[in-house]
Amino acid sequence: MRNRIDKSDHLHKRTGTGTQHADPKKAESLGIAETRYFIFHELVTLSGGNLSPVTLAYETYGILNSDRSNAILILHAFSGDAHAAGFHEGVEKPGWWDILIGPGKGFDTDKYFVICSNVIGGCKGSTGPSSINPETGKPYGLKFPMITIDDMVNAQRHLIDHLGIDKLLAVAGGSMGGMQVLQWMASYPERIRSAIPIAATVRHTPQQIAFNEVGRQAIMADPNWKSGDYYDGPTPAAGLAVARMVGHITYMSERSLEEKTTARRDPASPFKPTAVLEVEQYLSYQGNKFVERFDANSYLFISKAMDHFDLSGKLTNALRRSGMKALVIAFKTDWLYPPEHSKEIVRACKMAGGNATYCEIDSPHGHDSFLLESEQQGHLIRHFLEKVVKE
Amino acid sequence: MRNRIDKSDHLHKRTGTGTQHADPKKAESLGIAETRYFIFHELVTLSGGNLSPVTLAYETYGILNSDRSNAILILHAFSGDAHAAGFHEGVEKPGWWDILIGPGKGFDTDKYFVICSNVIGGCKGSTGPSSINPETGKPYGLKFPMITIDDMVNAQRHLIDHLGIDKLLAVAGGSMGGMQVLQWMASYPERIRSAIPIAATVRHTPQQIAFNEVGRQAIMADPNWKSGDYYDGPTPAAGLAVARMVGHITYMSERSLEEKTTARRDPASPFKPTAVLEVEQYLSYQGNKFVERFDANSYLFISKAMDHFDLSGKLTNALRRSGMKALVIAFKTDWLYPPEHSKEIVRACKMAGGNATYCEIDSPHGHDSFLLESEQQGHLIRHFLEKVVKE
Repeated sequence: MRNRIDKSDHLHKRTGTGTQHADPKKAESLGIAETRYFIFHELVTLSGGNLSPVTLAYETYGILNSDRSNAILILHAFSGDAHAAGFHEGVEKPGWWDILIGPGKGFDTDKYFVICSNVIGGCKGSTGPSSINPETGKPYGLKFPMITIDDMVNAQRHLIDHLGIDKLLAVAGGSMGGMQVLQWMASYPERIRSAIPIAATVRHTPQQIAFNEVGRQAIMADPNWKSGDYYDGPTPAAGLAVARMVGHITYMSERSLEEKTTARRDPASPFKPTAVLEVEQYLSYQGNKFVERFDANSYLFISKAMDHFDLSGKLTNALRRSGMKALVIAFKTDWLYPPEHSKEIVRACKMAGGNATYCEIDSPHGHDSFLLESEQQGHLIRHFLEKVVKE
Repeated sequence: MRNRIDKSDHLHKRTGTGTQHADPKKAESLGIAETRYFIFHELVTLSGGNLSPVTLAYETYGILNSDRSNAILILHAFSGDAHAAGFHEGVEKPGWWDILIGPGKGFDTDKYFVICSNVIGGCKGSTGPSSINPETGKPYGLKFPMITIDDMVNAQRHLIDHLGIDKLLAVAGGSMGGMQVLQWMASYPERIRSAIPIAATVRHTPQQIAFNEVGRQAIMADPNWKSGDYYDGPTPAAGLAVARMVGHITYMSERSLEEKTTARRDPASPFKPTAVLEVEQYLSYQGNKFVERFDANSYLFISKAMDHFDLSGKLTNALRRSGMKALVIAFKTDWLYPPEHSKEIVRACKMAGGNATYCEIDSPHGHDSFLLESEQQGHLIRHFLEKVVKE
């Protein structure tokens, strides 16, 4: 699985459309998709750490055109992965942004070559704290170097080089994916023609850091955490579940939480340590589901990367004379990364004389809207990309 | 300390003003205050539990007049106690609402007899899960009955009976104190002339419940919790600290968190499990400070009481023909119990044909504003009480 791929691999070859499904839900989709793994020699992190070798998981959909000018890089949020669209063999659930990536969708795979790159630091196939440290032959754990959004983007730049793409048509992503978009804009303005940061922020505020810190403290308070050295024993599942519960509350609007749960009350029952109210059960379910698919140390490292993110001031400077177009999308009920934060991104672009459009979508789903709003987001993205192509 | 007091104890006797201080900060205050303990025979909780005997901690300030018509009952928030104003002997910090209770202040102790009652379920001198269960001779722990805001208020009603007060001039409190005010309005409308619910809500919403549930899960995930049976060993301090950190974020506005902490970033350092950023240190300090003064089981029981609180529909019915006046105060930056929730209280009063005034204070301090805003709150309360007295 994890081997180098040939640069010509994606040229004129449709990927992610191998199988046609009778299931109408799947018929609109790309069909079967597969995660690939790109391995490169070395990444020196901003913190001076040295990762070698580095594996980056990614998927691609659609066909790279002959002048390699139709490539779009998709970047995922905190707990996301490379599997953004289509279906993995034998799995019922499609990729996390299947509503927006596919034939005729916002990121139209009949027109564009769409790449979704995983981040380093995670636990979804790319090098992270649960990977084997070649120096010790054991998982990195806390020996993994502190990483930043900057480092994630630098690793992705290696992938884009490897794919032979000189200039991306667009980079796009929501939440932490939006931060990576902004970092791409700041670090490599000459490598991208346009950018779509969604539900993002120029810097993590103390409140956003505070919510992450609660999650970290919950993980580190779990005796199974053992200073990150738990890979040959039980995992800090209870702490990680609490961390996810906090996150989950911040991803939803008050209204969407209200709609998913009604607060049935039974004060006549004695105290039970288990979830009784519907909202408690909902959170408990979310927490426990997450524990099965995520590594606690990755939670620590990735959340730290987000907390250290701060492009205020830097974005405008980087964008001067870049001629880049930006579509900035925010959601009215997002209280974690509220519209005001997206307006700051627009201001930074405009201060650089750039071409930035701000769109606020009136969705009830809070921060999670970027994962759920197919119609309006799809429309905005489709029209924006068409304009970028014409220029 | 814990003995019955005589009913005439508070008549024509100034309490809480025993000592005059040279310190100008203390000169404006009541002087030395002392917590008293009222013990009554039995309380049957809404859940069918039986507490016997029941101790209620309380303090009083000012003088009860001869017709016992100037008594105001103050009710505290989640982690508060009976010590609302003045100073305890040898302690530098005054009571939690000293900014509003004292000579010439909002609750003017030159005019009114102010009582602050602790809640049952807590750990501040009143019967709670850390109290000795007479049946076993050991702390109640999880054998403590599930309690509600209703039960808290019923216990307080015993205290008010004991003090010989037929009709309170006012009941007032913020946050969970505001919920107790609403419960007094619903349960005993004939016993109060006016009510001042501040930063409160008619019912706990799924989002509010969700934040509490995260705190409970953090406590119960701590191996020292031992199903609540930890009183002869180490306490679940790590879990309780995480619970407090979540709470603390919700009590502050984004701006006030920003002002208390700047997010200094040092991504060049390796991962440290300890707090590095200023906001992390601030939260860690708040969490650890709390652990010294609060019992984890009390956190579970009191937060459950709040989550079960739901007076929607009931308040209006209770208030019909009561002739009660209400002053409802909310804070613009309070996102935990936002102004909209206070407007619901006003609507419920008006639907009952009642006299309710709504005041929204433009304070930057979030939910915590009720503990910090002395001037505007003091003004509103003073004028409101003067009107109630004149009627």
